[in-house]
Amino acid sequence: MRVVALAGGVGASKLLRGLVRVLPPGSLTVVGNTADDIEVHGLHVSPDLDTIAYTLGSAADPERGWGLAGETWNARDAMERYGMATWFALGDRDLATHLYRTRRLREGACLSEVTQEICAAWNVTTPVLPMTDDPVTNRIVVDVDGTAEDIHFQEYLIRRGSPPGVIRSYVAGVETARPLPAVVEAIRTADALVLCPSNPVVSIGPILAVPGVREAIQRSRARKIAVTPIIGDAPVRGPADKLMPAAGIDVSCAGIARHYADLVDTLVIDVRDRDRAAEVAVFAKCVVADTLMTDLDASVGLARVVCADLGLGGLSA
Amino acid sequence: MRVVALAGGVGASKLLRGLVRVLPPGSLTVVGNTADDIEVHGLHVSPDLDTIAYTLGSAADPERGWGLAGETWNARDAMERYGMATWFALGDRDLATHLYRTRRLREGACLSEVTQEICAAWNVTTPVLPMTDDPVTNRIVVDVDGTAEDIHFQEYLIRRGSPPGVIRSYVAGVETARPLPAVVEAIRTADALVLCPSNPVVSIGPILAVPGVREAIQRSRARKIAVTPIIGDAPVRGPADKLMPAAGIDVSCAGIARHYADLVDTLVIDVRDRDRAAEVAVFAKCVVADTLMTDLDASVGLARVVCADLGLGGLSA
Repeated sequence: MRVVALAGGVGASKLLRGLVRVLPPGSLTVVGNTADDIEVHGLHVSPDLDTIAYTLGSAADPERGWGLAGETWNARDAMERYGMATWFALGDRDLATHLYRTRRLREGACLSEVTQEICAAWNVTTPVLPMTDDPVTNRIVVDVDGTAEDIHFQEYLIRRGSPPGVIRSYVAGVETARPLPAVVEAIRTADALVLCPSNPVVSIGPILAVPGVREAIQRSRARKIAVTPIIGDAPVRGPADKLMPAAGIDVSCAGIARHYADLVDTLVIDVRDRDRAAEVAVFAKCVVADTLMTDLDASVGLARVVCADLGLGGLSA
Repeated sequence: MRVVALAGGVGASKLLRGLVRVLPPGSLTVVGNTADDIEVHGLHVSPDLDTIAYTLGSAADPERGWGLAGETWNARDAMERYGMATWFALGDRDLATHLYRTRRLREGACLSEVTQEICAAWNVTTPVLPMTDDPVTNRIVVDVDGTAEDIHFQEYLIRRGSPPGVIRSYVAGVETARPLPAVVEAIRTADALVLCPSNPVVSIGPILAVPGVREAIQRSRARKIAVTPIIGDAPVRGPADKLMPAAGIDVSCAGIARHYADLVDTLVIDVRDRDRAAEVAVFAKCVVADTLMTDLDASVGLARVVCADLGLGGLSA
């Protein structure tokens, strides 16, 4: 039994923490988004990969969803003394991760190797594969008082607080990025494939845009399922509602269904959207479930729904 | 009135915090040792310069002497998870300094510029000049079970705990290092010159070894004074007693007097060594004082003694 999950950050990790508890040990492989990566103070930060590692390692902060539980912020506060930009907050314990990753990359290690090492340090045995070892970056072109500014996604999201006025977004470098061979192989040999409830533009989108990945998914005989990141007309978290319109995706579970129509067999929509099941069913089998994942039990519950659709219902549920 | 002080780390900083309170504002320039600098986790750490900045900025930890008061160690503890070497401890707030310095150096700034910026961040108005912008490194050749090992000074001091068996020490790169022009100019135009109570081998020694510095001191018409770092047959702190014999320096105030005989007019020895005043007087005028500097008042007291000998006694004392 081989299950591959394509994952962004917080939303994906909440489903993953359920999947690892429901699926047989060793059956899950995670493909993580790296287009949100950013260099901060000379350190290579991989927000989505870290959120996955920390969450699967039961070390993530349960309130924020990102970063480490019990984190302190003394380095960040001290940075202000030097006039260093602190809008991208790095916690003290989190800094160790970035110092480690940066040193290893500088030594010549690949991001995929370092990610494996970081996961091992948090006792995460589930393989977490960055979609590529090559640098790719989400860029947002946003209208600021009539001028189009082209900025890093993290600057858009955090520094500017996700303003409206998105003209378009793109994944810089993705055309020439090589997919991690293990990613293509995992998709090729998968029995089941899960698109986690992540931003379709800046999380799942970049993974699909790595040359060869979308084709591998379409060729794969795996049963394929997506979980909507949209409830009603808004994402559970993050700026998807600001980014999806410019990408031509309606901000609704039906929009998600249409967007993933050529990729998945099933879409899980939220119970609050049950009256849209017929619209969704035009594009994919529609499963209705509680998708909010407010705690671990809810994550396990949603993972069971996903596994049932994948024909894995009786495995450990 | 221009006073130049050659300074190592903790001992020097204790005298400097007295000197800045006794001397007229703007009259002191500090020349700091950089041969203890080390790259830790990809970050450029300048232990002596930081100790000076933190001490003059009234931010140094009063117990340790180095690092910041109220420091936390969460990043270091987290590093252990990644198997990172943590023998060179970096505090959380201290990390901001090293991240800042490293980024600025990578941007092309000189160490002297960055040092000025760091001092400004701690409201230190006294110019603190690294002896050189070029990389120089204290190396210790130590006998380990019959084998000579050549290791970085910090590895000798901290990781190995200053074992005996020092064969020799040297300052790698110093022959080709260029003195900071401002250092030579400050010495040239100084009215008074102070060799702080620092390790003569790995703190003051490297400064003097930068081509042109020793000559500038000898040519200078400044009145010159040193404060012994040795009381009895041991340094107040640090491994000087392990390093001085291999450098041909007797571990005593008399040894210091002989070592600095061609550089200084006066040596301040400790009251506990008053019976060695005659030996010292062979090489320099001998002033006896309490040199321990256990608190700020003691630092101010010793600074007054130094200034009195320099003919600056009535200035602000």
